[in-house]
Amino acid sequence: MTAQTTDGDAVLALNQAFYRAFASLDFAAMDALWARHLPVACLHPGWTLLMGRETVMDSWRALLAGPQPPSIHPRNEQVVMLGDTALVLCEEVMPGTVCAASNLFAREEGGWRLVHHQAGPLAPAAERGPTPARRLH
Amino acid sequence: MTAQTTDGDAVLALNQAFYRAFASLDFAAMDALWARHLPVACLHPGWTLLMGRETVMDSWRALLAGPQPPSIHPRNEQVVMLGDTALVLCEEVMPGTVCAASNLFAREEGGWRLVHHQAGPLAPAAERGPTPARRLH
Repeated sequence: MTAQTTDGDAVLALNQAFYRAFASLDFAAMDALWARHLPVACLHPGWTLLMGRETVMDSWRALLAGPQPPSIHPRNEQVVMLGDTALVLCEEVMPGTVCAASNLFAREEGGWRLVHHQAGPLAPAAERGPTPARRLH
Repeated sequence: MTAQTTDGDAVLALNQAFYRAFASLDFAAMDALWARHLPVACLHPGWTLLMGRETVMDSWRALLAGPQPPSIHPRNEQVVMLGDTALVLCEEVMPGTVCAASNLFAREEGGWRLVHHQAGPLAPAAERGPTPARRLH
């Protein structure tokens, strides 16, 4: 197994842990996934930019505070290795909606930690047309 | 000026060049911004994942093929330096809509090149509420 495969496996496992923490409302597990020293940022769907660990974790505390665990799981995960950062791209499957997500990991103190997350809803397949629509971009 | 400031300035300038290429339908300029050797990916708003240079550039060719240049410009740019990668987070202002975007750059052959772009619409401020909504995530 090459080092790259090992790193790819590691970030894929962390990406799954991210959605497990989300789906089980486990704030401590979510908190442990995010970098402690590197700068962190987060773009929740529809939401303005959150920057800085405290601000980002406050948003997760709010999101994970509900009484009802959300149904969310990743699919079609792809890893892009970029040296000491690694990008996991995936779809987030929820009841009635699917988001596309970019989860960016970076090496910190020998491990991989989340430094950025952006997710946004996919248009239903029937509305997507043959190419990305410029009106949305 | 520190090296980090210089790199931050460089990626900010490239981020502006990205939106200039977009707004002027300049495919050659857009093509030059994207990495040649590193893996690239793109998540256009509402669209499924595009991976690989040819696929990503085909999407830009289609987006930039229209007769009418789109009105789009970035604002509130923030740079997150992560060693040999750099993340620019910004809002994309278009007529009637604003997207939040993550533009990921990486060092390639001594310069910075785009390796990933994700953009998705911001909810209107009046709909955003005090914290990110879990229904959307």
